[in-house]
Amino acid sequence: MTVRCAEPNGFCFGVRRAIDTLETALRDYGEVYALGSPIHNPPEVARLERLGLKVVHDTEDVPEGAVVFVRAHGLSPEEMERCRRRNVHLIDGTCPFVSKAQERAAFLSDQGYDVVIVGDENHPEVRGIRGCVIGRAYVVSGPEALPATFPSGKVGVVCQTTQKEPNLAAVVAALVPHIVELRVYNTICGATAARQDAVRFMAQDVDGIIIIGGKNSANTRKLVEIAESESVDVTWVEDPEELDSRWLDKHSILGVAAGASTPDWLIDKLISRLATRRSSRGMEGYVGEQPRSGDH
Amino acid sequence: MTVRCAEPNGFCFGVRRAIDTLETALRDYGEVYALGSPIHNPPEVARLERLGLKVVHDTEDVPEGAVVFVRAHGLSPEEMERCRRRNVHLIDGTCPFVSKAQERAAFLSDQGYDVVIVGDENHPEVRGIRGCVIGRAYVVSGPEALPATFPSGKVGVVCQTTQKEPNLAAVVAALVPHIVELRVYNTICGATAARQDAVRFMAQDVDGIIIIGGKNSANTRKLVEIAESESVDVTWVEDPEELDSRWLDKHSILGVAAGASTPDWLIDKLISRLATRRSSRGMEGYVGEQPRSGDH
Repeated sequence: MTVRCAEPNGFCFGVRRAIDTLETALRDYGEVYALGSPIHNPPEVARLERLGLKVVHDTEDVPEGAVVFVRAHGLSPEEMERCRRRNVHLIDGTCPFVSKAQERAAFLSDQGYDVVIVGDENHPEVRGIRGCVIGRAYVVSGPEALPATFPSGKVGVVCQTTQKEPNLAAVVAALVPHIVELRVYNTICGATAARQDAVRFMAQDVDGIIIIGGKNSANTRKLVEIAESESVDVTWVEDPEELDSRWLDKHSILGVAAGASTPDWLIDKLISRLATRRSSRGMEGYVGEQPRSGDH
Repeated sequence: MTVRCAEPNGFCFGVRRAIDTLETALRDYGEVYALGSPIHNPPEVARLERLGLKVVHDTEDVPEGAVVFVRAHGLSPEEMERCRRRNVHLIDGTCPFVSKAQERAAFLSDQGYDVVIVGDENHPEVRGIRGCVIGRAYVVSGPEALPATFPSGKVGVVCQTTQKEPNLAAVVAALVPHIVELRVYNTICGATAARQDAVRFMAQDVDGIIIIGGKNSANTRKLVEIAESESVDVTWVEDPEELDSRWLDKHSILGVAAGASTPDWLIDKLISRLATRRSSRGMEGYVGEQPRSGDH
């Protein structure tokens, strides 16, 4: 059995930075509250809870004076203010790319632009960005979701960091005929697209792909969909323990890809399990082969 | 024979304003120099020359202290300065929509944006707009003409006033993936599209279309191309005298459309010629029928 790892794989810059920040805070303070799950990966959340993390879903559930962690998705200024009113100590894990999108939205709004946010209106990142807009804000998933008319001739556009550029471009193109001035900040972070491209690339050389990541992780689900669309046999596990031996037996060249919210220790555990299995069956192969240079 | 007139038809706002300004100057000063033909319509230029207009193609050919007319297409700041150095009296007929595009280009350039001008690089309007950019400027006819890379992450876009919005939208969409900030001023004037739509609409109800306008007029040529693409028999004349009687005999419902640079007196002369012909042949019909309300 040959095993190949997608590259890039697992934690993106913003998530790694946020989790590192959280771990430092847990070491420093022993107990840290997070508003919403700090990462869409249940095994990683369980590990962090063992270190002292308390996940709550409302500011009201945070004790006065507690240490509160802001996850990579960020918070709106209003949510931040609500935390501060409880005299909490904020540990800010907001991804710098998300902070930039928030700043751009606030700037555009301050300059009198109506603000279009391209993204999923229910995503916490988008709710945080929207919260930075003082004037009119429109959250649209794509060009078809644009309102028929805008009350202002000045429209600013920002984007959820995980969106795809063709979708942003389509929204912008649809706006052009209706506006006098359009100011677009491309706040997309390349990490999502890079992980998706890595799966597409890997799919050409393997006969099965294991995607490892939280079942509640949108970016992991997307990797699964991409692998499936490439007509490769795909299995999606949150933990390597879930791997089905019969599924593994069917494949001789396996690819491994992890969502941006999958920690290294889970990827390592998976690779290790595959390596053990390979040697116990006396098969040839190699683990963790890197893709050919220049492919990404 | 029935005759229908496109609506809108003939002079656009900017050309009418420029020619009115020029006529006033000719009345006031007797002799006025124009840098480049003031309008792409030879019969109209001949009429204006009879009133005292002198068309020259280089600043060097303008006598010191002369009265100089700036046509609707505008001039670049450098050309303006060259005129001023000859102590001329400038009569500015620049279309306000062109002035706005020039101002936007200058503003973007001043704010550190690379400037993309969507338009025809050889058109005097575009040369004037480009001349307002101090930093980098790229003139592109469409998305395929964009350079592969931009040296700056800040790109501003303005547009030749007679461009089509889908082309501007396509250029903007193509820029989105490559830039950090994109600032678009939609400087398109609706007059061109409205005249083109009027020809498309009229083509459904007539069996022949007479386009009247200068053979050197790009916007008139475009009306001809649109009429031809609608599978209607088309004839293009600069002067009604050129009309071919045998061509007229073949048609029972005729449409008349004029470019944005065709003066009213030429349209009136054409309608009058068709009316005379109709009555001399004892045919039923009406002249100058307006399109159904709400169609434009």
